[in-house]
Amino acid sequence: MATIFDKILSGEIPSHKVYEDDLVYSFLDINPLSRGHTLVIPREAKARVHELSDESCAAIGRALPRICRAVLKATGAEDYNILQNNGAPAHQAVFHVHFHIIPKFNDAGLGVGWKPGSLQAQDAEALLAAMHEHLSSEG
Amino acid sequence: MATIFDKILSGEIPSHKVYEDDLVYSFLDINPLSRGHTLVIPREAKARVHELSDESCAAIGRALPRICRAVLKATGAEDYNILQNNGAPAHQAVFHVHFHIIPKFNDAGLGVGWKPGSLQAQDAEALLAAMHEHLSSEG
Repeated sequence: MATIFDKILSGEIPSHKVYEDDLVYSFLDINPLSRGHTLVIPREAKARVHELSDESCAAIGRALPRICRAVLKATGAEDYNILQNNGAPAHQAVFHVHFHIIPKFNDAGLGVGWKPGSLQAQDAEALLAAMHEHLSSEG
Repeated sequence: MATIFDKILSGEIPSHKVYEDDLVYSFLDINPLSRGHTLVIPREAKARVHELSDESCAAIGRALPRICRAVLKATGAEDYNILQNNGAPAHQAVFHVHFHIIPKFNDAGLGVGWKPGSLQAQDAEALLAAMHEHLSSEG
């Protein structure tokens, strides 16, 4: 199912291109949370990070530092958030993976709600057992 | 200046290890926003993403899909956020780069505050000119 980002990648819909390489495309968010709000997406058409190929997500990681530097240079921002949402309950609206780079200026930028709990030793063991079993199964 | 994460990397402080490779280390957050809240950090001691080497941040990108799959398998979550904060005003508390993987369950997980504006064509041009100039200067 083609998303608006597939149409941006194909050129069917125009975008304000920041950066591109063989695996990655980056452009300005047209509904920015703050000045310079930029999106970084894989060319690979997957909805969620855990569905991406290693190569595709590595390419995003490789591009992030330089794109962040460009955002900071262009805006004068010093602080910023990188946010990537998976699933509608987690605020994903376009179902093609996208990383937001959101400069933080006083009131403008990402609002972060943070209500931490405390990790219990027994639950940590249960989680790690399941995680390690899964990671082993991937080889 | 050594952070608590440097001490985790050196083994001076124990952690609940999820995953590691030559460039990346991942462990459970001891103050989780939700069950399975996991951190992914570079071994490289840099405070912010734009300071990381390409190789270090690519390695994080490469590891993210598999670590996300492990988090989802272990918790049964379907939805999640990946968040990375740069600077105290952007909610960074430990000044060693870290990516949060935060499962989203009904009320538990990351709170996201989203107040979008609208990108103006003239400002888009100004931003892109500055971003492209910077990216060109990096070669």
